[in-house]
Amino acid sequence: MPRAAPPSAGSTAAPGGPTECDALVIGAGPVGLFQVFQLGLQGIACQVVDALPEPGGQCMALYADKPIYDIPAVQVCTGRELVGRLMQQIAPFAPGLHLGQTVDALSTREDGRFALHTSAGRHFIARTVFIAAGVGAFLPRQLALDGADALRGLQLHDRMPAPEALAGRQVLVVGGEDDAVAAAVALAEARALHTTNPAAHPADNPAPARITLLHRRTTLSAEPALLARLQAMLQAGHLQFQVGQLLALQAEGGRLHTAQLIDEDSITHTLPVDQLLAFLGLSPKLGPVAQWGLALARRQLVVDAAHFETSTPGIFAVGDVISYPGKKKLILCGFHEATLAAFAATARLRPGQPVLLQYTTTSPQLHQRLGVATPARP
Amino acid sequence: MPRAAPPSAGSTAAPGGPTECDALVIGAGPVGLFQVFQLGLQGIACQVVDALPEPGGQCMALYADKPIYDIPAVQVCTGRELVGRLMQQIAPFAPGLHLGQTVDALSTREDGRFALHTSAGRHFIARTVFIAAGVGAFLPRQLALDGADALRGLQLHDRMPAPEALAGRQVLVVGGEDDAVAAAVALAEARALHTTNPAAHPADNPAPARITLLHRRTTLSAEPALLARLQAMLQAGHLQFQVGQLLALQAEGGRLHTAQLIDEDSITHTLPVDQLLAFLGLSPKLGPVAQWGLALARRQLVVDAAHFETSTPGIFAVGDVISYPGKKKLILCGFHEATLAAFAATARLRPGQPVLLQYTTTSPQLHQRLGVATPARP
Repeated sequence: MPRAAPPSAGSTAAPGGPTECDALVIGAGPVGLFQVFQLGLQGIACQVVDALPEPGGQCMALYADKPIYDIPAVQVCTGRELVGRLMQQIAPFAPGLHLGQTVDALSTREDGRFALHTSAGRHFIARTVFIAAGVGAFLPRQLALDGADALRGLQLHDRMPAPEALAGRQVLVVGGEDDAVAAAVALAEARALHTTNPAAHPADNPAPARITLLHRRTTLSAEPALLARLQAMLQAGHLQFQVGQLLALQAEGGRLHTAQLIDEDSITHTLPVDQLLAFLGLSPKLGPVAQWGLALARRQLVVDAAHFETSTPGIFAVGDVISYPGKKKLILCGFHEATLAAFAATARLRPGQPVLLQYTTTSPQLHQRLGVATPARP
Repeated sequence: MPRAAPPSAGSTAAPGGPTECDALVIGAGPVGLFQVFQLGLQGIACQVVDALPEPGGQCMALYADKPIYDIPAVQVCTGRELVGRLMQQIAPFAPGLHLGQTVDALSTREDGRFALHTSAGRHFIARTVFIAAGVGAFLPRQLALDGADALRGLQLHDRMPAPEALAGRQVLVVGGEDDAVAAAVALAEARALHTTNPAAHPADNPAPARITLLHRRTTLSAEPALLARLQAMLQAGHLQFQVGQLLALQAEGGRLHTAQLIDEDSITHTLPVDQLLAFLGLSPKLGPVAQWGLALARRQLVVDAAHFETSTPGIFAVGDVISYPGKKKLILCGFHEATLAAFAATARLRPGQPVLLQYTTTSPQLHQRLGVATPARP
């Protein structure tokens, strides 16, 4: 999974000013994406916020390349394929996607609409909110060592920093999964390029002086092709691999200079470190959702199974974040929940107007919204 | 849609004797098929009964070749494609399919199991029953004319009879949709073959003496390719087309000999008829389901939205046949309902055992039931 967030696709927010919308969906997992689809069928455009740098939620964070067998009418697909299919399906509705950020504050305004603020400084005013937050926002697991907090964003990173920050530095990458290995290999390959042809790339290839990958075991969890590139970099001496665990960070005058670690044989080592990249995987955090005054039961949002509305009218919730009698945490159940929530929200957004059940096979109105031709009647 | 029923696939019934099973599903529409899938994941084998000669229910009867856009993660598919995908998905569970027959009687036995009898004379004893009957059994619309009932199965047919019954006869096909046109064209093409080469096909091509297609309007609703074949047969004189409506059937000694009809200009005609094929389309009939003592509201079965169980414990109901607060008659909602019903039924079938929520991505037990390999852990 790429660490660097791509620019938000389809964003309609003016810089600084609030984005007003009929519907804001929190969570771009499969259920959040299908929420966009069902609202789109109702003619309601959505803004979507997600903590991850790409859509897909758990499907991408936990089983992007693993098979799923119980999506109805899809015999088998990977998490990545499922997300791709859903993104294709919602394309006609062109939602605003605001990725790599969490909704940190939600409050009800005097006019009955909801004000939402994200960790990236975006501000939304929404008439309805759909919480499709799954098991919570997937955020990078934090390194828990004395003194770490003071270094964060300066010499300690959980996403790849700009290359300039690493130029000529002693870099330590901690982690044993795809993203840690990919980061170490990318830096080593940049260093290799810089070493073989320093004149051609003096500025745009500012490679680190030394790169060490640290993992607690010898086994790394990454694609074979990536491991082959790792091997090449190790053999060429552009990358070091160390088995062990971080024990302590040593700083002077607020500046990290050394990491202390312990290897498999319980021998401690010290390693000069200027920049520490801790790629320790993602961990879901329910986080702010639990602070918005919505009724909870066992850390799940309580909804009614007819409208999938929370204890605050106008705020709906669907998918793994909710609880109701009979609830099963399955993607296909979330699809149903998102559908009924869309009907209920439409009734709220268009008071006094009946919400008709229309079929995508026959309804010219739905065909228009989907951007497809209505077949001529024989 | 073919009129002739293929032999039931995967039937496990001994001729005459009852078939005992854990689960019997009434209705082979998309929701009934997904019910088989969810029960299969739980390790429960199913018998399935449907009125139509092929699986698919409304998807095949009403929109086999029309696009559906709201199946999650399937951007577009026809009714036929959806059914094909579901049949592929349930293949590992090899359900017994009993097609072209309706469940006419359902009663509770003293041992708590359910006894079911079909219109084809099959007898089932099931521990749980799942009614996925949609808007009802799709049965051929009946010709409503005086004297018609007495001729049914002899000289009046709503499915294609054996060719021998039509050999050398005056045949009248009534209807203006695919199946009526296809029947008339098939008979005319058989006649053409017989006429051009009578010696080669004396027995196996016993063509009618005369074939007339009668429809109330000039417009026929059929595929262009079929209409081209119709045109060719009309031009070659192997088929007559008459616009008009049947007024009366005239019989003597219980034997039909003439049909009286009225054309667009209100002129009446008489036509000699030995065999009358009335292909008037399919009409759904809730039929016997309403007679089984289950609680109904507005002709829908009342269920609870946690277990999808009817007022009779052990009889579950899913899809368009049911009613609960918030219910929407959408296929994707039926998928959810079938899933929760499968969990509830499993608890009933395995009392005292916890029903675990397992994921198809990770559960070796589900992989075994699906017949797929469990990926090795990295």
